[in-house]
Amino acid sequence: METGSKRPRIRLGMVGGGQDAFIGGVHRMAARLDDEFELVAGALSSSPERALGSGQALGLPSDRIYTDYETMARSENARPDGIDAVAIVTPNHMHFKVAETFLNLGFHVICDKPMTLSLTEAQRLHDMVSRSSRVFVLTHNYSGYPMVRQAREMVQSGAIGDVRVVQAEYPQGWLSSRQDSKQAEWRSDPARAGAGGSIGDIGTHAYHLAQFVTGLTAEELTADLATFVPGRQLDDNAHILLRYKGGARGMIWSSQVAIGKENALRLRVFGSRGGLEWSQEEPNILWVHDLGASTRKITRGSPEAGEAASRVTRIPAGHPEGYLEGFATIYREAAELIRAADGDSVSDPAAMAPDSADGLAGLQFIDACVRSNLQGSSWVRI
Amino acid sequence: METGSKRPRIRLGMVGGGQDAFIGGVHRMAARLDDEFELVAGALSSSPERALGSGQALGLPSDRIYTDYETMARSENARPDGIDAVAIVTPNHMHFKVAETFLNLGFHVICDKPMTLSLTEAQRLHDMVSRSSRVFVLTHNYSGYPMVRQAREMVQSGAIGDVRVVQAEYPQGWLSSRQDSKQAEWRSDPARAGAGGSIGDIGTHAYHLAQFVTGLTAEELTADLATFVPGRQLDDNAHILLRYKGGARGMIWSSQVAIGKENALRLRVFGSRGGLEWSQEEPNILWVHDLGASTRKITRGSPEAGEAASRVTRIPAGHPEGYLEGFATIYREAAELIRAADGDSVSDPAAMAPDSADGLAGLQFIDACVRSNLQGSSWVRI
Amino acid sequence: METGSKRPRIRLGMVGGGQDAFIGGVHRMAARLDDEFELVAGALSSSPERALGSGQALGLPSDRIYTDYETMARSENARPDGIDAVAIVTPNHMHFKVAETFLNLGFHVICDKPMTLSLTEAQRLHDMVSRSSRVFVLTHNYSGYPMVRQAREMVQSGAIGDVRVVQAEYPQGWLSSRQDSKQAEWRSDPARAGAGGSIGDIGTHAYHLAQFVTGLTAEELTADLATFVPGRQLDDNAHILLRYKGGARGMIWSSQVAIGKENALRLRVFGSRGGLEWSQEEPNILWVHDLGASTRKITRGSPEAGEAASRVTRIPAGHPEGYLEGFATIYREAAELIRAADGDSVSDPAAMAPDSADGLAGLQFIDACVRSNLQGSSWVRI
Amino acid sequence: METGSKRPRIRLGMVGGGQDAFIGGVHRMAARLDDEFELVAGALSSSPERALGSGQALGLPSDRIYTDYETMARSENARPDGIDAVAIVTPNHMHFKVAETFLNLGFHVICDKPMTLSLTEAQRLHDMVSRSSRVFVLTHNYSGYPMVRQAREMVQSGAIGDVRVVQAEYPQGWLSSRQDSKQAEWRSDPARAGAGGSIGDIGTHAYHLAQFVTGLTAEELTADLATFVPGRQLDDNAHILLRYKGGARGMIWSSQVAIGKENALRLRVFGSRGGLEWSQEEPNILWVHDLGASTRKITRGSPEAGEAASRVTRIPAGHPEGYLEGFATIYREAAELIRAADGDSVSDPAAMAPDSADGLAGLQFIDACVRSNLQGSSWVRI
Repeated sequence: METGSKRPRIRLGMVGGGQDAFIGGVHRMAARLDDEFELVAGALSSSPERALGSGQALGLPSDRIYTDYETMARSENARPDGIDAVAIVTPNHMHFKVAETFLNLGFHVICDKPMTLSLTEAQRLHDMVSRSSRVFVLTHNYSGYPMVRQAREMVQSGAIGDVRVVQAEYPQGWLSSRQDSKQAEWRSDPARAGAGGSIGDIGTHAYHLAQFVTGLTAEELTADLATFVPGRQLDDNAHILLRYKGGARGMIWSSQVAIGKENALRLRVFGSRGGLEWSQEEPNILWVHDLGASTRKITRGSPEAGEAASRVTRIPAGHPEGYLEGFATIYREAAELIRAADGDSVSDPAAMAPDSADGLAGLQFIDACVRSNLQGSSWVRI
Repeated sequence: METGSKRPRIRLGMVGGGQDAFIGGVHRMAARLDDEFELVAGALSSSPERALGSGQALGLPSDRIYTDYETMARSENARPDGIDAVAIVTPNHMHFKVAETFLNLGFHVICDKPMTLSLTEAQRLHDMVSRSSRVFVLTHNYSGYPMVRQAREMVQSGAIGDVRVVQAEYPQGWLSSRQDSKQAEWRSDPARAGAGGSIGDIGTHAYHLAQFVTGLTAEELTADLATFVPGRQLDDNAHILLRYKGGARGMIWSSQVAIGKENALRLRVFGSRGGLEWSQEEPNILWVHDLGASTRKITRGSPEAGEAASRVTRIPAGHPEGYLEGFATIYREAAELIRAADGDSVSDPAAMAPDSADGLAGLQFIDACVRSNLQGSSWVRI
Repeated sequence: METGSKRPRIRLGMVGGGQDAFIGGVHRMAARLDDEFELVAGALSSSPERALGSGQALGLPSDRIYTDYETMARSENARPDGIDAVAIVTPNHMHFKVAETFLNLGFHVICDKPMTLSLTEAQRLHDMVSRSSRVFVLTHNYSGYPMVRQAREMVQSGAIGDVRVVQAEYPQGWLSSRQDSKQAEWRSDPARAGAGGSIGDIGTHAYHLAQFVTGLTAEELTADLATFVPGRQLDDNAHILLRYKGGARGMIWSSQVAIGKENALRLRVFGSRGGLEWSQEEPNILWVHDLGASTRKITRGSPEAGEAASRVTRIPAGHPEGYLEGFATIYREAAELIRAADGDSVSDPAAMAPDSADGLAGLQFIDACVRSNLQGSSWVRI
Repeated sequence: METGSKRPRIRLGMVGGGQDAFIGGVHRMAARLDDEFELVAGALSSSPERALGSGQALGLPSDRIYTDYETMARSENARPDGIDAVAIVTPNHMHFKVAETFLNLGFHVICDKPMTLSLTEAQRLHDMVSRSSRVFVLTHNYSGYPMVRQAREMVQSGAIGDVRVVQAEYPQGWLSSRQDSKQAEWRSDPARAGAGGSIGDIGTHAYHLAQFVTGLTAEELTADLATFVPGRQLDDNAHILLRYKGGARGMIWSSQVAIGKENALRLRVFGSRGGLEWSQEEPNILWVHDLGASTRKITRGSPEAGEAASRVTRIPAGHPEGYLEGFATIYREAAELIRAADGDSVSDPAAMAPDSADGLAGLQFIDACVRSNLQGSSWVRI
């Protein structure tokens, strides 16, 4: 990584992510880790006071602390030293408008997931990105973990044969009872979160991860969405069956009422010649089952970790990398893509940060789950 | 256990379970462990030579080695020292006829699962048992594990509140490719295994375990059955969604093509106040999640293990009990029930060995899965 | 196992092991599991009433319930149907006298560990056994676990190269504070337990296991023995360093004050080409480290389990075997040796049940630990 | 963290840490994560070409890329915008001279461990720091993990009672055979690494961690150092027994020949009322044993994590933090101390980054191990 002369940092702005917002801080740490970005501007909250306070706390120049994203977009566009890219870390209902505004002015966009509030918006945004020369990266961050890359590479190389069964799950317990936190509040409000509760917030992660690793396309699903906590409007538990193109079958369980589970995203894939198991809470390990042999524990940084994992590995085996490092990999790959788009370098062909197509797929998944559920949990096309 | 004067051992006969049959040996070891039974007669194989050889290898008296079960039933019935009970460990298609024969002659029956080949047979057998004074125990052996008893007791006592979500799975990998073993052969033959492949052989265990622990009744399900290995007639992977009476939702995954999984039966239950997790491959541990507190690891034999677990615990904490011990508990409880039925003692009210009602429920489950699958994996009543 | 005609069961007597004694019940279950023994006589307690009550509870014939072991030895010797072998499960201080008595009358002996109270006794008993044609088996039961056999076989075959480092530990927590149980009481009384507290009760297990698996001979050690619970006379925590013949180094930690540990016996061995890790609380797994490759998880009953493990495996992979099964293997191998000694069959050359040489080594270990500790924890010859 | 107006970043220089040096990159990422430092100058290698190339790759201004540390110290001292602090990440033999040079010119120092090559140097450096107003932080980074802080807080609060037994270990396998890597080379050269091989490189971490968590002072030790790989001059395996002031006993195992172990630093502490277990490879978990209760799994960010852990926690429970985050905590606390020393703020009394006293203790430990080993592994005062 540290060869040749260092290129200037990419100038980054941020919309959303003010004080008390979990994900904003994550994006900032992720952006810093590999020193490819410098945060120089922000419209960090829809509340002017919080936007101001947050910008000062982050040490932003006072003239680049904005109280609304539209002013920010115009002002930064007018500056010679304006931002190159914007990170969108607002609640879901803002993603589309903010992304559209910045893309239209020629900024690159790094956006939290799910990509938009609705499938319609997702389709429009994806079309917009497709016609544009700008980079759009969606932070399905779990795809940045080295051992997830390892899993994908192994599936692609045929290590487990033809994929037959895909078991994905993402249980959490933090919404097991009524909750007043800001984090909890907007996530269970359809106007800001969209039609999906657990399926939108975490189910899309599981769905994306399954597709990312297996390369399969889901064609049909049935979804049984439940809301266990009284007064809640969106699903807090979802059971989903999937049929993939080519015959593989899948299961997704997302839950926010699984008491005791923290962020227990897990993927297990079984094929005709082997199997793979990965868990987000032990991310440095990939368990590999080979037909007729003992299970192997491949660790990040170890001799059996391949090219795809090594490329995004920062420190030696046994020194755990975590969530921020995986997230930072998405930022690093966004930087590679941005530099390539801006003509600064040749884009790394191995960069595989999620994009608007992944975002569209996520909204198609949410939409299909909701449709299925409304039809008595019948099977629907995705 | 070892107080008062020991009562004479229950005289046990066995049908099926000859040489090379895995489950017969298991039943015999389970029957011996607590010294409540003595194996004295057997019709151990449908092949006369194997029946003879197996009987000799087990040291049965030559006049009590039978080559067919009907002769055995009549002869033992005629002896003053005839058997008290029979263990049926044949392939599934024989269960009904053998059970009927022995029940009709007044013998107690211990039968392997699934109880019968078909739902019709199951209903008839259950009716027969209900009208009889004889004991019928079905070896859903996983319910004999102490920490499964602990889980059940905790759910009953309200430790996790109202049950919301039930995740059960039983993946195996041993049928991931074509297989010629005797074990594999009859299990994938509809004439001997019944309409269920993985759902019958192992799915019923997961289904029973979920009901045993939660006390819930499943009302509806949708099943997506798949057969991945070419040439196989029955499902080797099943994805099932469940709706329980009262609103809880469930998921069952059974698979015989999950390479690397051995007998990875696992149950996770989440309620309004807590959660429980248990795994057959680490059976001495129950993970307990309490709302707002850290996860506890309750081990068999430890201070937080309650009455239900202690009752079926043989050795101290940290000295693992395993599959045979759990199986032996079913036999021990069968012995308690048999002695009570025969007037030898007061039946232990805490005995909870599975019976013909559980067997009927298992066949109802298989039947519903097959019906759902035939109807495009739609939801069906169980 | 179940081929040919079954031979008659070996008639077994027991000294010690009355009601409330943990280890007596274990020996009885272990003796029953493979149906090679029948318990027919006992002097089960030094208390006549308890001896009587225990014998009745076990269903022993009234004329074979003895109140002292000497009468039992003489009477059984006089009977045409007298016992073939005796199991000694008393507190340690009785082992020598009982073993001597029965050996002198020509009985085979199965004895709990440590073999005797003192090194002097151990030497005498070992000499006696060496001159005798009788079988003497010491129940260092952990050597009966299949994956311990697997580990031994792999070391012998050179799979990990030359052994360099041996880490053995056996922490328990049950004596962390003053305890009034019968189990606790004699184990912390030098007159009945011998000079070793934790080192005698559990340290000898760790020491034996290390030698059993590696085949190495320890030559020197230093021991730092501590007694943490006020009023206790024997060590409840021991830290020991070892030097093995050939240059390997070892560490043993035994503790009875490690709160939260149950029977956490563990062995880790590292050589020039690989490493092995085994834990008694997860006994069905052997972790194997190969130089330059990923760690493998070899499970009991799986394809990579070799001949030595398979020979003592009863049930399929993924169905856990536990403590009793490992203990039963020692009994099964004792049976093989006894039948061979009695001319009934050819002894199985693969039988490797511990014997009086192992018992002597155990007392040498205890003696060396105590000597080292008395000399300021200096290095001593073993 | 993000409240009030952000203070300017601390200007950081670095000595050592050029291309291919593992630990330099770690320090840089750690320094960046919380945005408290900005790297502005460096003498990154003793090779001028590598120093230059490394500086350019990192984007340092060309006039602040130095080829020797003395020039750097003088030049930075002369600049109005000179560095505030220096990070020393050279091989061990350079630590003393570099630290002395920068301290004497009034710079703060962040130094890798072990602090110096020899005990004499350590004493001198500690004296120098003690007389100085400058901050000296030693990167015993494992003390920065939140659950290590949790463990320390629990011990201090009496949660486990009086500490009795301390088991620390740090096995690695990467030097199991002859190795030509730059990383391996200097670490096994006494002239650059000092008198300790594994004890210096990783044993000091284990020793520090034990003292950090327990608050105990080790008084005596015995060390059995071994060198297994032919041709190696320093120990690659060390077995150490410890006696702490007050009566607690300890064990340390450090190894670089434990094939299959990566960075398996682990600490287990047992007291009169409970026990704690922590492992670096699963750093987000603290296992807590309470007398008479079940083991609890306290996770970073969860309700039972206390103030000390929460203070250094960046992201929610279940999203793993890793090695870099723990390392970054040391840097963050160094920043707090530096700002306090420079009068910019009140030092956070909760900052507990290791300092020169810890560095001195580390060299005393190495010295005692070597002395003990030379005297036939006898007990020595530390």
